[in-house]
Amino acid sequence: MTSTTAASTGAGERMHALASRLFPLCRSITGDGVRETLREVAEQIPLELHEVPSGTQVLDWTVPDEWNIREAHIATTDGRRIVDFGESNLHVVSYSEPVRAEMTLEDLRPHLHVHPERPDWIPYRTSYYTRDWGFCLRRNQIEALEDVTYEVVIDSTLAPGSLTYGECFLPGRSEDEIVLTTHVCHPSLANDNVSGIALLTEIGAALAELPRRYSYRLLFIPGTIGSVTWLARNEDQVSRVTGGLVIACVGDSAPLTYKRSRRGDSPVDRAGAHVVGRSGGRVLDFVPWGWDERQFNSPGFDIPVGCLTRSLEGEFPEYHSSADDLELITADRLENALQSTLEILDVLEHNRTYRNLSPRGEPQLGKRGLYRGLGGPDPGTEQLAVLWVLNQSDGSHTLLDIAERSGLAFSDVDRASGALLEAGLLAEVP
Amino acid sequence: MTSTTAASTGAGERMHALASRLFPLCRSITGDGVRETLREVAEQIPLELHEVPSGTQVLDWTVPDEWNIREAHIATTDGRRIVDFGESNLHVVSYSEPVRAEMTLEDLRPHLHVHPERPDWIPYRTSYYTRDWGFCLRRNQIEALEDVTYEVVIDSTLAPGSLTYGECFLPGRSEDEIVLTTHVCHPSLANDNVSGIALLTEIGAALAELPRRYSYRLLFIPGTIGSVTWLARNEDQVSRVTGGLVIACVGDSAPLTYKRSRRGDSPVDRAGAHVVGRSGGRVLDFVPWGWDERQFNSPGFDIPVGCLTRSLEGEFPEYHSSADDLELITADRLENALQSTLEILDVLEHNRTYRNLSPRGEPQLGKRGLYRGLGGPDPGTEQLAVLWVLNQSDGSHTLLDIAERSGLAFSDVDRASGALLEAGLLAEVP
Amino acid sequence: MTSTTAASTGAGERMHALASRLFPLCRSITGDGVRETLREVAEQIPLELHEVPSGTQVLDWTVPDEWNIREAHIATTDGRRIVDFGESNLHVVSYSEPVRAEMTLEDLRPHLHVHPERPDWIPYRTSYYTRDWGFCLRRNQIEALEDVTYEVVIDSTLAPGSLTYGECFLPGRSEDEIVLTTHVCHPSLANDNVSGIALLTEIGAALAELPRRYSYRLLFIPGTIGSVTWLARNEDQVSRVTGGLVIACVGDSAPLTYKRSRRGDSPVDRAGAHVVGRSGGRVLDFVPWGWDERQFNSPGFDIPVGCLTRSLEGEFPEYHSSADDLELITADRLENALQSTLEILDVLEHNRTYRNLSPRGEPQLGKRGLYRGLGGPDPGTEQLAVLWVLNQSDGSHTLLDIAERSGLAFSDVDRASGALLEAGLLAEVP
Repeated sequence: MTSTTAASTGAGERMHALASRLFPLCRSITGDGVRETLREVAEQIPLELHEVPSGTQVLDWTVPDEWNIREAHIATTDGRRIVDFGESNLHVVSYSEPVRAEMTLEDLRPHLHVHPERPDWIPYRTSYYTRDWGFCLRRNQIEALEDVTYEVVIDSTLAPGSLTYGECFLPGRSEDEIVLTTHVCHPSLANDNVSGIALLTEIGAALAELPRRYSYRLLFIPGTIGSVTWLARNEDQVSRVTGGLVIACVGDSAPLTYKRSRRGDSPVDRAGAHVVGRSGGRVLDFVPWGWDERQFNSPGFDIPVGCLTRSLEGEFPEYHSSADDLELITADRLENALQSTLEILDVLEHNRTYRNLSPRGEPQLGKRGLYRGLGGPDPGTEQLAVLWVLNQSDGSHTLLDIAERSGLAFSDVDRASGALLEAGLLAEVP
Repeated sequence: MTSTTAASTGAGERMHALASRLFPLCRSITGDGVRETLREVAEQIPLELHEVPSGTQVLDWTVPDEWNIREAHIATTDGRRIVDFGESNLHVVSYSEPVRAEMTLEDLRPHLHVHPERPDWIPYRTSYYTRDWGFCLRRNQIEALEDVTYEVVIDSTLAPGSLTYGECFLPGRSEDEIVLTTHVCHPSLANDNVSGIALLTEIGAALAELPRRYSYRLLFIPGTIGSVTWLARNEDQVSRVTGGLVIACVGDSAPLTYKRSRRGDSPVDRAGAHVVGRSGGRVLDFVPWGWDERQFNSPGFDIPVGCLTRSLEGEFPEYHSSADDLELITADRLENALQSTLEILDVLEHNRTYRNLSPRGEPQLGKRGLYRGLGGPDPGTEQLAVLWVLNQSDGSHTLLDIAERSGLAFSDVDRASGALLEAGLLAEVP
Repeated sequence: MTSTTAASTGAGERMHALASRLFPLCRSITGDGVRETLREVAEQIPLELHEVPSGTQVLDWTVPDEWNIREAHIATTDGRRIVDFGESNLHVVSYSEPVRAEMTLEDLRPHLHVHPERPDWIPYRTSYYTRDWGFCLRRNQIEALEDVTYEVVIDSTLAPGSLTYGECFLPGRSEDEIVLTTHVCHPSLANDNVSGIALLTEIGAALAELPRRYSYRLLFIPGTIGSVTWLARNEDQVSRVTGGLVIACVGDSAPLTYKRSRRGDSPVDRAGAHVVGRSGGRVLDFVPWGWDERQFNSPGFDIPVGCLTRSLEGEFPEYHSSADDLELITADRLENALQSTLEILDVLEHNRTYRNLSPRGEPQLGKRGLYRGLGGPDPGTEQLAVLWVLNQSDGSHTLLDIAERSGLAFSDVDRASGALLEAGLLAEVP
């Protein structure tokens, strides 16, 4: 598996196109929006859909009733629609109870929400675990409301059903698993998180084509309750998971960001920091805030799951508002995030420990054709990588150790180890 | 014990007033000046005075003869006083032998000392362990001396007596002790160190009113020989002392400063660095120079005693001169130093290790009323503290560990642990 | 052994004079140039010359045939010499096969080399392990060549003989050895490396006069094949070598530089970093590129050999060209490099661990005459060193540990330990 193989032309465009198809769907933590989303994903990669009944106890939580919505509006009594769910699914607070009533502005007002800073943006609000209902409006919409009676309709259902998530399992030579997750619970928000859904889908397609040392489990899950549910249903097998990545917000203009897991120096952390750090991105320490990494990194599981993003949760102004639309994300940035993710996985796949079979003095590289490209004062990256691998391969340093100590890219060190293996100068340490 | 309880209004003024009463007394390492000082302190807090006879062997040292002085002057033979102890007790070298003689300027000159840099300041000089005598003068005083015969009088006694120190013991639930010391051997010098005596007195008053996990031992001792004497007399019980603080020079304009103990990372060091570092003060590494921390941190004891100061010994220009007067110290700075010291002790008192009782995934905080204050992109300090405590409480991290890793204040982390304990989500690890 | 003893006046001039005598000799990895060089060195220090026959297997290498050259030129058929080895021994590619031919410019051209950047410099080229021949020219020389037939002569021999190296062994009280090496394979190049040969010779002369705790082995060896040969012939005894230094490029204007060994924190590394760091020089991490440290630091030996240089290999523009001449190196810089090297060895010689015999509290230094020089606010280096040694000497810290922690010079800490030993306050820990 190499990143160059995976960097198939057009992946960025393909991801942006998938994101555009997913954008209009009204997703929430349960319901048909999630199912439609997962069916789109299943067109690209093998995806198993799971349905977990409402009321199921999952760790400290309970799977909630399923929510579906068909229509909603606020209208004057003469039928003029002030706010219409058909225009934007952000207009309705997610998980709103059904409402069908006439009410005064005074009674309606506590159910109306605007963006705290931007009058022209519709905010995104939810009320998953407290029964409530509400509308989200642009500020000018709320200011135009007169002190009259309004017809208020939310044609939703909130009733026993199930929570839906998607799972794509790609077996590798080892039963050790790497889990890759993204949240599928947000309605028409582009960076957060149809960008993540599109990227994880493309990663799945790329991994399916590659030889795999590790097994990979891709989870398309509603935030928090989804990872809690998956962990609860897989408690027996969770020890197989050696690490993972949460993928979200990968299309905006912020630099690529790797947030470490609770452990901080697990293999995925070191691979993430190496790749993202060298690409000029940000490497941040763990904080128990963010997305589903919070559940994996809880102390009872302590599974080292890092986070691959551009902006963090809440870091970009358009966050959780109607301004987080398809223009905020670009094919280029999605493609670049894909490359980096595959490079991180490439480090995990190819990190090995070797023993130098000619460890006393340097072996004479010239007679083996490994001292080429020399002559000037600067040995060049290729030559340095060969010398570093020979020098450090005493059976106790991995290739990533060598890359970190030498300051060379993992890919250069890996390539040098390949040449030395071929020359019979290295043996793998099991 | 919380810093807010202790921050009783007027503490700064109270300390400055005590400092002002103590300032005129002629203290030295022994003698009545120390006894009067300790009697003033004993008006505020329960203080036991100890008298240790001259000649007593204390570790590698011997308690010296006791020194007392009534009067001293240099006068012309016609009775005009050039230098008068009555004007400033700094005029006489501390521990000067008695003198009563007429002598030429030439014979007198080797006994006269001026400030090396400031002609208008009287320097402070001592000669504790070498029999000698001398006067300290402003430079203009010495320059005005004519080449005539002078009457020189030092009406002192230097004779077997005792060394005096004060001890205030405040028992806690544990026999483990924290020792807090300040030196009481300097005459009319304000920052160094009536400021320290006043602060330690106020700390004693505050601690006396608070529930205490640790036992506290407050020592008002002459520098070096005092701590050597206390350590010698308490060698059997010294293993109870888990750490401590030397308090000195806490009234000048330098930023608050914590100097680490020899160990560098003991509990008091971490608490001191946390509180002083967060307040914008300085955190310095151990140096075997300074005050009585030198004795506690000697390798045969190795008791982690740090130092809480503003200026360090020798760091402010007025150090050991008549310019170190009551105007150099302010009530505000004393109050601020009091707050920080109590906060350091608060960390020691409340640092605990807990175990998250719902460690697999995050517990559902909403149903327990612990997810309040949310909604915007920023979780807020209170919420973050709750999540950090849950995430790190696997039985191996103290609250201070969590504060250090999260970057939150200890007090915020401590408050979060209280809320989680109440919700039944934490148990203390003994 | 102290650096002041060794800093004999005139050492810089003496080294520059030796460098000037060595400069004209045509050295290579074998041959009479090396022998003449070693005979010059042997005039100054006791040096044993070793001859290792061509064809000898040494680790992964084979000792090559011996190369000697008497004369070489390119001339027009009417006898006008265009390029003449007599003018500069850089004109001939080192290890060129014998040639005696008439050839067209077209056939000659592949054998002509110029400096890639500087038209007026003759480059230095070698072809040790691939049979070849060639000339190195200034660019204007090559541009002046007309398209005619030339007489080409290289009067060299490349035939079984031997590889020559010099070894100076200075026994110490311990059998543990410190190895000091320099490469002797470069022809008329001043900084790289007659500067190193001259410095190592002077170090040998200085060490011979000093009492020695360690044994010292000075190796004057051809690059790479020399250290490989020495290691191969001494595999049984190599475990005695506790560390060492490669010395090269010590005369140019770059700051003094210590490059760490593979281990990075061995005694020689800590001594090198302490001395060079405090002198304002550079301390660099290990890289498996450079000179003979590559062989010592190979994983099968892992002997901690650092590198003492000014410029590193390839770092100065004149590197491997005719501009690396005697004007590039100065007596002052050679003398300064000598001082620093002897200071590094002084740290290794005098680093000890002591136990404070009066560890409970500070011993009373005044009564032992060790509290002199006091009185002002600043204790002074001498006093601080005494206090640091007492404070840290619990049997687990070496003098170098103490110097590193205190920020004091090793020499100050060493002097303080001497005074404390004399006062009976310290005992050496074996």
